Amino acid sequence: MKSARPITAAIALSLGSGVALADDGMLERAQMLFEPIPESAADLISERNPITPEKVELGEMLFFDPRLSASQTISCNTCHNVGMGGDDNIPSSVGHDWQRGPRNSPTIFNAVFNVAQFWDGRAEDLTEQAKGPIQAGVEMNNTPSNLEATLNSIDEYVQAFESAFPDSDNAVSFDNTAAALEVYQATLITPDAPFDQYLKGDETALTDQQMAGLDAFMNKGCVACHNGVNVGGQGYYPFGVVNRPGADIMPESDRGRAQVTETAQDEYVFRSPSLRNVELTAPYFHSGNVWSLKEAVAVMNDAQLNSLLTDEDVENVTAFLRSLTGKQPEVVYPELPLRSDSTPLPDIPDYPRGSGEG
Amino acid sequence: MKSARPITAAIALSLGSGVALADDGMLERAQMLFEPIPESAADLISERNPITPEKVELGEMLFFDPRLSASQTISCNTCHNVGMGGDDNIPSSVGHDWQRGPRNSPTIFNAVFNVAQFWDGRAEDLTEQAKGPIQAGVEMNNTPSNLEATLNSIDEYVQAFESAFPDSDNAVSFDNTAAALEVYQATLITPDAPFDQYLKGDETALTDQQMAGLDAFMNKGCVACHNGVNVGGQGYYPFGVVNRPGADIMPESDRGRAQVTETAQDEYVFRSPSLRNVELTAPYFHSGNVWSLKEAVAVMNDAQLNSLLTDEDVENVTAFLRSLTGKQPEVVYPELPLRSDSTPLPDIPDYPRGSGEG
Repeated sequence: MKSARPITAAIALSLGSGVALADDGMLERAQMLFEPIPESAADLISERNPITPEKVELGEMLFFDPRLSASQTISCNTCHNVGMGGDDNIPSSVGHDWQRGPRNSPTIFNAVFNVAQFWDGRAEDLTEQAKGPIQAGVEMNNTPSNLEATLNSIDEYVQAFESAFPDSDNAVSFDNTAAALEVYQATLITPDAPFDQYLKGDETALTDQQMAGLDAFMNKGCVACHNGVNVGGQGYYPFGVVNRPGADIMPESDRGRAQVTETAQDEYVFRSPSLRNVELTAPYFHSGNVWSLKEAVAVMNDAQLNSLLTDEDVENVTAFLRSLTGKQPEVVYPELPLRSDSTPLPDIPDYPRGSGEG
Repeated sequence: MKSARPITAAIALSLGSGVALADDGMLERAQMLFEPIPESAADLISERNPITPEKVELGEMLFFDPRLSASQTISCNTCHNVGMGGDDNIPSSVGHDWQRGPRNSPTIFNAVFNVAQFWDGRAEDLTEQAKGPIQAGVEMNNTPSNLEATLNSIDEYVQAFESAFPDSDNAVSFDNTAAALEVYQATLITPDAPFDQYLKGDETALTDQQMAGLDAFMNKGCVACHNGVNVGGQGYYPFGVVNRPGADIMPESDRGRAQVTETAQDEYVFRSPSLRNVELTAPYFHSGNVWSLKEAVAVMNDAQLNSLLTDEDVENVTAFLRSLTGKQPEVVYPELPLRSDSTPLPDIPDYPRGSGEG
C-alpha cells in the first residue's frame, strides 16, 4: 500500500472545501483520502516473502517465544501485546535488565500497511524491523548466532523452519526468523472498524459526532499526514512545525529521522503514526508521555495545525478516532517447542535471588 | 483430590513386590497408586468458589493482564506461560525491577490437584496463592488498593466482576480477583497423557521402556512421594533424606517448610512437586539449577533412594516421565479491557531511556 494512489490533489480539494456541511459529499471525499483495511495483506509482501500456512505457524511460535531474547524472558508479544492493541501501553518498553527503550513501542497491528517501520522509518519492511529488537541491548539483547544455536537445538523448530523454507540451504537462520515473523505479523490486521464500514458505503456506521469529527479531520489539516489505508504511516513530517511541544512530549535529544539520514532537514521529522486502533494504544507520541487521546489531539492541534481546531472540533475528532478500532485478530496461544539438553541457557544477570519465600 | 484415597497400603504392597515382571499385574498396581486427570476439576473448588463461565472469562483476562503488576508489564502468564508447560523455563523468575524470585516457578497446569500451593505449601488453595505474587516485591510489586483502583477505573472490568460475582456487595475486590484467577486456573488441566490412557486400560499406551520405567518408579520408591492424580503434589517430604545434594541444588539458606511452620522437623521439607508434564518444565527442583530430566532423576536417586535405581532404571524412569505430558489447554488470547483516563499509571523505576534508536 506504499503510496498506492496520488492523494495530494484530494487533500488540497478537501482542505479547500472549508466548512462544508457534514453530509456534503463527505463519503466521496473520505473514499478519495482513505481506504478500508482489506481482508488480507498478502499481496503487499508476497513477491519477496510469500505467505504460506507453514510460515504463519512458525512465525506465530517465534512471536510468542521468549527464547528469542538472551534472558529467555522477553518475547515479541511482551512489547507488542496482541491482547492490548498490539503494543504495551507504557511510555517506553522495559527490556533486558529492566532497561528502557528510547521510544514508545508502536502497535504491530496493521504495521504491514506502513510505508516503513520504526518511528524514524529506518527499516524498510517488517523483516528488516524484526532484526532490530532481537539484537538491541535495551530490548532482547540477543545475537544472531545465539538465536540460531537456540533454534537449531530444538527439533520441532528445525522441522518447522524446513517446512516453511523448503528452498533454503540453511533453513534455520536469523534471516528466515525475521521473514517468518513478518509473515505472521502481516496476518495481524484489524478490518471492519466502524470507519471501514463507512468507507464501504454504510453511512450509518459513524455517530453524528464522529461524522463531525471526520469532517474536521479532513477539512482542517489532520489528513495531510494521516491518510490512506492506515490513516497515517505513509510519510515523514516534522513534529512541532507550528509550535514546538514541551520537552516531555518532544525531547530535544531525539532528533528523529535526522539520526538516520544525517540530514539537517530531517531534524525532528518522524513517520506519521497510523491512527488505526489509536484508542487502544495510549500513551501517545514517540515519547509516550500523553495518556489521554483527547489531550493528544489537542497537542497536535497546537503543534501542527496552529489551533485551527476549535474545542468542539477536538472533541469530535477524538470521537472520530474511536471509530478506527477494528476487529482484533483472534490468536490461539501457540504451544512452544520443547528445548533439548543442548539448548543454550538463559543469560540473566546474576542478581541475588529474593530472600522471601517462593 | 486432597488425599482422596488411602494409598499407604498400596505403596507398601508395591514397594514390597521387588523386581516384579513388568506385566505382572502392573496396571492394577498403577490404578491403586495413581488416577487419570479428570475431564474437569470443578468439583474440587465448587463448594467454596463455584465455576461459572463469567468467572472463567474474567479470570482469563486477569491472568493475561500485565496491569495486575505495579509496572503494568508483568502478568501471571509471564511466569506461568501457557505455551511453555505453564511455567517460565528459567531457574527463578524475573520480576519487578529485574529482581529474581527465590524459587523456581511451579507450573500452573494441574495445580488445582495439589494438596496446597507454593513449594512450601503455605497457600491452602489457588485463591490464596494468587494473592502472593501480585504483592511480592520481587514479583508484581502491587498493592491490593492500587489493583482495585486500576480495575475500578476500567468499565469493562467493573461489568465483568459484577457479572462474575453477582452476590458481592463489593464485586471489584482483591479477594474476587484471586477467586476469579483460581477458577480460570482450575480449567488449565492436561488430560489424556499416554499415562492417563494407560490408567484407563489401554495397555499399549506406554512404550516398553516406559513400562519398565513405571515398574521401577513403583517398585523402588519414587511412588512414595509421587502418587495420586498429579504423580506428586500430595504431601510434604524432606529433601536430601539419604544424601544431601550440593548447595547449587539445595541451598542451605532455603529451609523450606520450616520457614512456614517454624518447626525443626520441617527443615528442608518441601511439598513434593507434581510430575505431570515434567518434561516441559525444566529447569528442576526448587532451586531450578538442573536442566536435564535424566539428571534430575539421578539426583533424586542419590538424595532420596540411596541409589536403588540402576543406571538403566534411571533411563527407563526418565522415559516413563515423558509419558506424563498431557494435552495442553487451548487458550485463545483474551482482548484486554480498555483503560480509562483515570486508570493509575504504571510504576516503573525512572531509569534513563536507552540512547539508541527505537
